[in-house]
Amino acid sequence: MSLLVVGSVALDSIRTPLGAVDQVLGGSATYASLAAGVYTTPRLVAVVGDDFPARHRRLLARRGVDLAGCVQAPGRTFRWQGRYGYDLNVAETLGVQLNVFQHFAPRLPDGWSATPHAFLGNIDPELQLRVRRQLARPRLVACDSMNFWIAGKRRQLLRVLKAVDLIFLNDAEARQLTGESHLGRVAQALIRCGPTLAVIKKGEHGALLASRDAYFTLPGFVVDDVHDPTGAGDSFAGGMLGYLARQRRLTWEGVKQGVIRGSAIASLTIEAFGTDRLAAATRPLVERRVAAYRRLCRWT
Amino acid sequence: MSLLVVGSVALDSIRTPLGAVDQVLGGSATYASLAAGVYTTPRLVAVVGDDFPARHRRLLARRGVDLAGCVQAPGRTFRWQGRYGYDLNVAETLGVQLNVFQHFAPRLPDGWSATPHAFLGNIDPELQLRVRRQLARPRLVACDSMNFWIAGKRRQLLRVLKAVDLIFLNDAEARQLTGESHLGRVAQALIRCGPTLAVIKKGEHGALLASRDAYFTLPGFVVDDVHDPTGAGDSFAGGMLGYLARQRRLTWEGVKQGVIRGSAIASLTIEAFGTDRLAAATRPLVERRVAAYRRLCRWT
Repeated sequence: MSLLVVGSVALDSIRTPLGAVDQVLGGSATYASLAAGVYTTPRLVAVVGDDFPARHRRLLARRGVDLAGCVQAPGRTFRWQGRYGYDLNVAETLGVQLNVFQHFAPRLPDGWSATPHAFLGNIDPELQLRVRRQLARPRLVACDSMNFWIAGKRRQLLRVLKAVDLIFLNDAEARQLTGESHLGRVAQALIRCGPTLAVIKKGEHGALLASRDAYFTLPGFVVDDVHDPTGAGDSFAGGMLGYLARQRRLTWEGVKQGVIRGSAIASLTIEAFGTDRLAAATRPLVERRVAAYRRLCRWT
Repeated sequence: MSLLVVGSVALDSIRTPLGAVDQVLGGSATYASLAAGVYTTPRLVAVVGDDFPARHRRLLARRGVDLAGCVQAPGRTFRWQGRYGYDLNVAETLGVQLNVFQHFAPRLPDGWSATPHAFLGNIDPELQLRVRRQLARPRLVACDSMNFWIAGKRRQLLRVLKAVDLIFLNDAEARQLTGESHLGRVAQALIRCGPTLAVIKKGEHGALLASRDAYFTLPGFVVDDVHDPTGAGDSFAGGMLGYLARQRRLTWEGVKQGVIRGSAIASLTIEAFGTDRLAAATRPLVERRVAAYRRLCRWT
C-alpha cells in the first residue's frame, strides 16, 4: 500500500566537521520519501521552484517516488543553509529562504485522497490539517513538528494531534510541547493529546516508541562515522512508515519492527552528505544493517 | 570476591522538581558501595568528619559494606548542595564544602591490597593512582572521573587510564577527554588510552559498552518517575562491578550482564531521594527490574 508524504523539498547547503556541500537535494519530504521508497511507492506532495534541477526529479522518480503531487511554481526552490559543530546532534541554521515554499498550499492529485498511509512532515500545522481533511478514511496518519510551530501555533498543532494516529517528535520538542520532563511521562502526555502511538526521536541515542500501555526503547546504532546528520529524523519516519505500509495488519510487534527499520535507515543516511547514501539504500542493505544492529543490542 | 571502593562520602542537600532533602547520605563511594552491596562485600575507602551520623554508618554496615577503610577525621564531613531543573539530566552545583575530604589520603587497611576488584571513584587522579599502586595484582580495576579533573589534571588522569582495565565516563566528559564527537570513536579513543573496556554513561539514554572490537548498547530504563538523579552513575558503576566480582570468569557476555544490572540498579536509585531506594535494593528486586527492562528492549 502506498504512503502519502507531504513536506518540504529543498536545496540544502551544509557544513559539518567532515566536509561541506552546496545546494544539494534536501527537505523533510525528500528524506522521508526516499526512505519510504525502500518499501513502498511514496506519493510526494510538495512544491519546488522553476530552478529545481531535473536530475533531482529523476533521482526521486528512479527511487519509485510518485511526483504527480510535486508542483513546480514560478520562483526559486526553498533553500536551507546549516552547520553542525563538534556536537553533531544539533544543527545551527545559518539561513533560510522559503521562496516558493512560503505559499505552499498542498492539494492532493485525483485519486490520492484514498491513500491509506500518510506522513504529514514538519510544515505549518494548518497545512497539515488541510491535507488530513483531504484524506478519506486512512489506515495510519503520522505527523512530525518542530519548536517553531510548538511555540507559534500550539493550538493548531494540538488540533493536528487529535487527527493523527502517530506523532514523531524529538525529545527536546516533545518536552517543550508537553511540559513534562521525564520521557515516559512525555510520551503519555503526547498520547493523551490524541495519537495512539508516539515516537520520541533521540538522535544518536535512538528512539522511544510508546502506546498507552507499552513501550519499546531502542538505542542508536553505532556508526563508524557521522558525515552529516541532516535528514536523519525524516529518514527514520519515512523508513518506519514505508515498512508499515507493507504490513497486512498493524500490530505492536510490527510497529516495533518498523521503528527498527526506520532507525537502521537513518543510520545509513548520516554516513554520507545529503541523500547520497540514503538514495542508494536497498532492502537487502537495510536488512544487513538491521542484523548488525541486532548484534549490538542483543542481551544474550 | 570483594570489591574495593574509593571515593567520597558526603552529606548532600538536593532540590529537584519533585522535592528537596537536607544533608542526606551521599557521595560517589556511598552510592557505589550500596549498589555493589547487592552482590558482594564492598570495602569502602573514604573519609568522614566527626559530625558523620552514626545512623549512616549503621546503614552502610547493614548493607554489608566493610567500613574498616572509612576513616573518621577531625572536622566536618564533605558537603554538596545541588539542584536539578526541568531537565533532570544535569545537576547544578549550588555549593561544595570539601571539609575533611580536602586532605583525603586514601590508605588501604591491612590485607586489603589483595582485593581482586576495585572501583576508583571520581576523586583526584593522583589519589586514584596512589590507591592503584597499593593493589597487588588485581583482576579488574575500574575508574571514573569528571570534567574538573579532565580540564585540570589531564596528564595525571591519562596515567590512571594506563593503569586500569575499565573506564566509566559520561558522554560529555568522554567527548571532552578524547576530543572526538561520535560515540563509537570516543569509545575507541578511550580504549587507546589504556583500558580494555570503556563504558560511556548516557543518563536517561542508557550506556554504551565498548571493547576494541565489540559494542553493546543499552537504552535507559523508562521509570515511572525520576525523583532524584543523584548517584545514578555511581550506582551504575557499583552495581556493574559488584555483579562482576561474583563471576568466576570475566567474559564479554558476563560484562554485558553486568552493564544491564548496573543500569537496572541505577533506575531504582533515581526513583527516590538520596539512597532511600538503593539502600533497600535486593537481588530479587533487581532481577524483577531486569525482567521489566528486557521486555522494554526486546526486539521480538
